Amino acid sequence: MEDIASRLKVKPLWFDDAERKFVWLDTRLLPWEEVYRSTTDYRRVARAIKDMEIRGAPAIGVSAAFGMALAAIYSGAGTVEELLKKLEEAKRVLASTRPTAYNLFWALERVWRRAVEAASGTSKVSEVVEAVLAEAKEIYYEDIRQNMAIGRYGAELIEDGDTILTHCNAGALATAGYGTALGVIRAAVEQGKRIKVFATETRPLLQGARLTVWELMKEGVDVTLITDNMVGYVMSKGMIDKVVVGADRITVDGYVANKIGTYMIALAANRHGIPFYVAAPTSTFDPNLRGPSIPIEERDPSEVYTVLGRLRIAPEGVKAYNPAFDITPPELVTAIITEKGVVTPPYVESIPRLLGLGARRG
Amino acid sequence: MEDIASRLKVKPLWFDDAERKFVWLDTRLLPWEEVYRSTTDYRRVARAIKDMEIRGAPAIGVSAAFGMALAAIYSGAGTVEELLKKLEEAKRVLASTRPTAYNLFWALERVWRRAVEAASGTSKVSEVVEAVLAEAKEIYYEDIRQNMAIGRYGAELIEDGDTILTHCNAGALATAGYGTALGVIRAAVEQGKRIKVFATETRPLLQGARLTVWELMKEGVDVTLITDNMVGYVMSKGMIDKVVVGADRITVDGYVANKIGTYMIALAANRHGIPFYVAAPTSTFDPNLRGPSIPIEERDPSEVYTVLGRLRIAPEGVKAYNPAFDITPPELVTAIITEKGVVTPPYVESIPRLLGLGARRG
Repeated sequence: MEDIASRLKVKPLWFDDAERKFVWLDTRLLPWEEVYRSTTDYRRVARAIKDMEIRGAPAIGVSAAFGMALAAIYSGAGTVEELLKKLEEAKRVLASTRPTAYNLFWALERVWRRAVEAASGTSKVSEVVEAVLAEAKEIYYEDIRQNMAIGRYGAELIEDGDTILTHCNAGALATAGYGTALGVIRAAVEQGKRIKVFATETRPLLQGARLTVWELMKEGVDVTLITDNMVGYVMSKGMIDKVVVGADRITVDGYVANKIGTYMIALAANRHGIPFYVAAPTSTFDPNLRGPSIPIEERDPSEVYTVLGRLRIAPEGVKAYNPAFDITPPELVTAIITEKGVVTPPYVESIPRLLGLGARRG
Repeated sequence: MEDIASRLKVKPLWFDDAERKFVWLDTRLLPWEEVYRSTTDYRRVARAIKDMEIRGAPAIGVSAAFGMALAAIYSGAGTVEELLKKLEEAKRVLASTRPTAYNLFWALERVWRRAVEAASGTSKVSEVVEAVLAEAKEIYYEDIRQNMAIGRYGAELIEDGDTILTHCNAGALATAGYGTALGVIRAAVEQGKRIKVFATETRPLLQGARLTVWELMKEGVDVTLITDNMVGYVMSKGMIDKVVVGADRITVDGYVANKIGTYMIALAANRHGIPFYVAAPTSTFDPNLRGPSIPIEERDPSEVYTVLGRLRIAPEGVKAYNPAFDITPPELVTAIITEKGVVTPPYVESIPRLLGLGARRG
């Protein structure tokens, strides 16, 4: 079977089988340096997620799964019961890193269930360990395949000559590779469509300027950088045909948590009649949530009163507020592109159908 | 007569009578350094405006007026005709600095008319020079008095306990002193109202983070810094009661050119039913323009792919776009606060009335 990961042009994370370690690109250092880090310690994976060396909901999910695999491989457990205890602790630590991305909890739960299932059929620690590693790898490969499927479905919505605005980085660097929103753009480009991209810089951590621009320039895609507050103006000037963004969590009724600033882009797109698309795997959907009550991570104020900790931009002693995500209501979302197809309003019907959930009655 | 400028807590520019020179605070260096510069050369004033050592529509207008005064004082002209030639050249140079702020053209025109008028009544160069300097000083003192009047009118719209969001810096540092939007906040605070402020950082040049926060902290006003893309979220959380911003140019039918990002804030305010106020002196109104066709300055892309030229944030070779202003349509503007009073929709009637223009028929 072909290793689908070998088709990736940007490969931000993987499991090194020879050395039984997890490897990732430290995205905090882009675009200045391309530094790959590795570890055999799941706590280090948790720190990489918390500190945003690894970021993007799908990448967080996949990395957490590999964190569980490392916890299993290096647990030192003598019995399966002991191993499950260690895995439960690892799950707790990894789950506490970032509260908004649903893929994190989804991936941890999935690996955990596989461990419990394996443990129920064997008393050999090594067999449970291998089951956990296999599950993590399945999540990894699935993510790449799903991104490519999202790309194919999404590219059908994109026309030759379109200029697409994207926010933050929902690219290869936010996933196991290929990307969700940028997967749609990649697929459209692979189909020979001429596409231009406007990338918002995405303060405070500048994932648009640092990561999206880096990824797209690497592949020769025509990309123009703007600040977040220019979106309304470029839309008013007719410069944008479509918006495609990723998501960190989507409720069953279509509320979308995504990087702070997404909501204002959706408002401006709505005003100017520009389609606003969200691209995300189904693992981003939280089947237990309805309405705008998604937990929103607040990060350290220093991210706001500095630029990446490298340049202070406000007086000493300034107060700052730093919500990392916002929530876009369903009425502003034209369609959601998943690996299983594209869903459109009314989401209260289309999302449960997509997820195979019984539709809830009003 | 009391020198009204002596009442200013932040005094960003003035004419030094003893040394016959113009003095200004280089706002590019705030909040790191508080550096005052001075010159006797109008070309240096033009450069200070173009490079944004001096910025903010009213400050630009006042500084250009003093630029004309310097051109007159140091012209070396032997005849009134020669002096007018020199002044015409200075007017051209000063007008070419920044295309959007209407106060610039208004102030230049006003000083020029005074020079022509004086020249028609005398053949003494020194008399025309003194008339020009007197006119520049009148514009300076008027600006301070007008800001205080804007503050008084605006403060009536502000309630005790309000949290006010402002964008960019429409403060003392954008005027001869006191400020327009921040003048409203200052006046409300002086009335004993408890006011909190949210300041957007205002990329690319960070006038919010650097200048508004600096001004307000200096006076002990409770200010919280956010990035531009957080506005929608904080509004959705009910954290903002009112928006007050400045303006660079307002058309007779109520289109408002202001710092890039203003339009997206107005859209979000509209969505959440939050009053959106514009505070500006009547010299900001362009009696010759209707509709959204205000000329918008595009500045160097390096302002976008760096932070203040101090930190590069995107890969080498990146393309960037840098419009410095955007246009907020009248239907998003709750009221415009001027030194002559507050105008409300329909602006197509209220603005011509305010300006004493004959209302145009539709």
